[in-house]
Amino acid sequence: MKQYECFELALPGREPVGSQAAADLAATFHLRGKQTEVKGFYAGNGAYKVRFYPQSVGTYHYEIHGAAQASGEIPCVAADALHHGMVRAQGTHFVYEDGSKYIPFGTTVYALVHQKKSLVDRTMKTLRASPFNKVRLCVFPKHYEFNENEPEFFAFGKTDGKWDFDKPCFAFWDQLEARIVELGAMEVEADLILFHPYDRWGFSSISKADCFKYLEYSVRRLSAFPNVWWSLANEYDLMDRFGAEWWPEFAAFLGRKDPYKHLLSNHNCLKLWDFCNPDTTHCCIQSQRVDETPYWARKTCKPVIYDEMCYEGNIKHDWGNISAFEMINRFWKVCTLGGYGTHGETYMDPLDILWWSKGGTLKGESPKRIGFLKNLLYSLPGPLEFHREGLALDADSYDEMHTGKAFRGEAIDPFFRSMLDLSREDLIKYAADWRQYAGHIGDIVFLNYYARHCTCAAELNLPENGTYTVEVIDVWEMTRKTVSADARGKVEIALPGKEGMAVLAIRNDR
Amino acid sequence: MKQYECFELALPGREPVGSQAAADLAATFHLRGKQTEVKGFYAGNGAYKVRFYPQSVGTYHYEIHGAAQASGEIPCVAADALHHGMVRAQGTHFVYEDGSKYIPFGTTVYALVHQKKSLVDRTMKTLRASPFNKVRLCVFPKHYEFNENEPEFFAFGKTDGKWDFDKPCFAFWDQLEARIVELGAMEVEADLILFHPYDRWGFSSISKADCFKYLEYSVRRLSAFPNVWWSLANEYDLMDRFGAEWWPEFAAFLGRKDPYKHLLSNHNCLKLWDFCNPDTTHCCIQSQRVDETPYWARKTCKPVIYDEMCYEGNIKHDWGNISAFEMINRFWKVCTLGGYGTHGETYMDPLDILWWSKGGTLKGESPKRIGFLKNLLYSLPGPLEFHREGLALDADSYDEMHTGKAFRGEAIDPFFRSMLDLSREDLIKYAADWRQYAGHIGDIVFLNYYARHCTCAAELNLPENGTYTVEVIDVWEMTRKTVSADARGKVEIALPGKEGMAVLAIRNDR
Repeated sequence: MKQYECFELALPGREPVGSQAAADLAATFHLRGKQTEVKGFYAGNGAYKVRFYPQSVGTYHYEIHGAAQASGEIPCVAADALHHGMVRAQGTHFVYEDGSKYIPFGTTVYALVHQKKSLVDRTMKTLRASPFNKVRLCVFPKHYEFNENEPEFFAFGKTDGKWDFDKPCFAFWDQLEARIVELGAMEVEADLILFHPYDRWGFSSISKADCFKYLEYSVRRLSAFPNVWWSLANEYDLMDRFGAEWWPEFAAFLGRKDPYKHLLSNHNCLKLWDFCNPDTTHCCIQSQRVDETPYWARKTCKPVIYDEMCYEGNIKHDWGNISAFEMINRFWKVCTLGGYGTHGETYMDPLDILWWSKGGTLKGESPKRIGFLKNLLYSLPGPLEFHREGLALDADSYDEMHTGKAFRGEAIDPFFRSMLDLSREDLIKYAADWRQYAGHIGDIVFLNYYARHCTCAAELNLPENGTYTVEVIDVWEMTRKTVSADARGKVEIALPGKEGMAVLAIRNDR
Repeated sequence: MKQYECFELALPGREPVGSQAAADLAATFHLRGKQTEVKGFYAGNGAYKVRFYPQSVGTYHYEIHGAAQASGEIPCVAADALHHGMVRAQGTHFVYEDGSKYIPFGTTVYALVHQKKSLVDRTMKTLRASPFNKVRLCVFPKHYEFNENEPEFFAFGKTDGKWDFDKPCFAFWDQLEARIVELGAMEVEADLILFHPYDRWGFSSISKADCFKYLEYSVRRLSAFPNVWWSLANEYDLMDRFGAEWWPEFAAFLGRKDPYKHLLSNHNCLKLWDFCNPDTTHCCIQSQRVDETPYWARKTCKPVIYDEMCYEGNIKHDWGNISAFEMINRFWKVCTLGGYGTHGETYMDPLDILWWSKGGTLKGESPKRIGFLKNLLYSLPGPLEFHREGLALDADSYDEMHTGKAFRGEAIDPFFRSMLDLSREDLIKYAADWRQYAGHIGDIVFLNYYARHCTCAAELNLPENGTYTVEVIDVWEMTRKTVSADARGKVEIALPGKEGMAVLAIRNDR
């Protein structure tokens, strides 16, 4: 048993009578008074399995009961340098369980596991060479434009022509798990989408009872894999055969059944999920409005991921035809606002192999530039927070503005006074028009991004009580140029007057 | 006297006693029972002038009374091909008085007339070679960054160190008028800004009585010039020394005093002017939110001009550093939404001569591309209206959407049903995120602009009862390529998958 790695015990037993999903198998792992209950599962071929995720080092005592029985002691050795444990939310950011950095730079391959092995292998190879450390993928196959192929396996079998959620397809789960493990080995989180509406097989119209059978089975099999995140759905709000009230129940069910409390969220088409839901660990947003990042961070006190902010590509759907520049523009915006973004790619392909759904190879220009941003953010001494400086023209400060609280000394200025004449709605719109992209880490790091503004100069307002090294960054050309080694206070930094420039100031005496 | 040209009568007289602005001089022009009252003015050097703008052909009888007296008959000959009369609002568009096309493509040179003659001459030369047919310019000088110079003349003189609005500076008005006439000769409308807050001389803090003296004098001198538009202010809402209630009074005053009813509007910084004001002829908007064009057109039933939608340039202010592409991107958006845009340019200059304020020469890449759009729009058989097709995702249709009225057959679609779950605010935002830029002229012309969407194909839904010639337009490269001569119904047009593409379909049998 190794800390932060899935531990599996296989035990022979008789094939379950009745449900093969809800097999009668449970285990308890004890360590220094702490007891973890897990459920096992029937894995086919007369084998039962129990999986456990050891978070701490020490000698565990375990007892297995039910269809198979065993007990014993197993030492758990400390994690090696390659295993950091599960990713946890920490404030509005993430961190690995061992305290090491995790900054999500996700991508999207919805039907990753529903392709031929050779294509999935190619996808994994591409991911390995990519900057991405999270991938959104579905359990159920996808029916949509460019997605007409029949998968080799489904998660469950049929009885009398109907999906039978007591009859898991072991081959499906084996291959899904193998890919999750493979992703884990390359330090990629598997943001696992449990439901979605793009369906011709019937998985989007199953009963609530079947949903719970499926969730229960997923927890039994998958929760010991540290790199699993639960994404309740892709576009939950389009699943009109599901009751709206089912979703919080699913979240609560997973929150209760999952012994390790994996990250959990839910992805919208139009109506955002209630991220204040107690079992939801972070915001998973489909929206182009990345400027609202500080609003969601402030409202939820949870990390904010724009898991869909349109895809780099050239398909006819407007959600799938932004330029590579616009893709990275959104990444830079969301990151300097204290949030995170997710990539997707939808370039037309003669074989209909579009990365966003089937994987394969990446064609676009944004991934390497996302890698550039990722390296930069990983090099910083902590996560970026949005830097509300002076009068923050962000939507979440409208009430302060409107009541005049945010004005302080500026109240004599006609500009600020005329802001008070705006309606709340207009003030929010106005604020959004003039959003500044400014991240900081205390007074240690300031990272301003100028987006599409072609300014000839950046004005920094650095603390006076220290000196800063200032770099000019070209986010497209991926260049970093040090322009000052000892900046302090108000400084003006010359910029080339083009789109996609950023300025980074790092304190020298940190 | 020539139709559509300013007619001027000069009469000798004694210098006025008291106000030189409110000289006792009036005239009546009679033509076929229609009588026009105009006021004259004292022009200095013992000369009084009466200006009249003849809209109709015929023999006018006139009588002048007051400080100078005269009467007589003057034939007015029909306009030549170079004179089209005043620009009028017609629905949500504009037209010259003689019925010929006027499609505004304005630019901005605020302090045009407050520069040295050589610079103003250069500006006029630049304008002559430019695509612009409207220029926004101020009567009062401008004090602002890059605008430190003292003008040669002010509109009024001083008495005891205070501006005296009974003492016009004739030299100022003479040169202003010469420039207005010069603009008229090149078919450029003078969108004359009467007040503005960027001031170190005191013109932004004059009394209401002085405002009316100034407006009265402006009407007497300028209203006979057909190419004058009254712009009450630049950023009226920042003029905190003026009462908010003055502005509708100014509008009403001009509406009453101006015999010809020149176009009139008012320009905001933050809070948009009330364009439903009865004396206001069109919307003059400062905002980046050109997507709201259809909303304003529908709300006001007046033409919509985004007279400030940021400027091409590289200065530090975010309103003055958008790229040339973004400038034309906004022009194409606003025009395909049935509105109009105004250009401005703010490139840093070693002599601080920035086009937006002082004029000079244009440095940017957008003007010629604005000219390309202008030529295209002028070649069409009428003005573009926004094409609300199917479910129009525009802000002004939110109520229809919310009540489900706009859904018709789509009500069974989960996507449309989930739209109904959005709050009104979220629905408006969502609609704005997916704005389509589609203009049309009945079923004669369809012009779709894809903005920053890099789609590989355009889908047109043309009428079935005719055939269309379809062109693919690259708005940056300024190319037009005919791709079909006989399209009808649903057609798909291949596009190169880059930003800034448009598709134009024109009916063949029109």
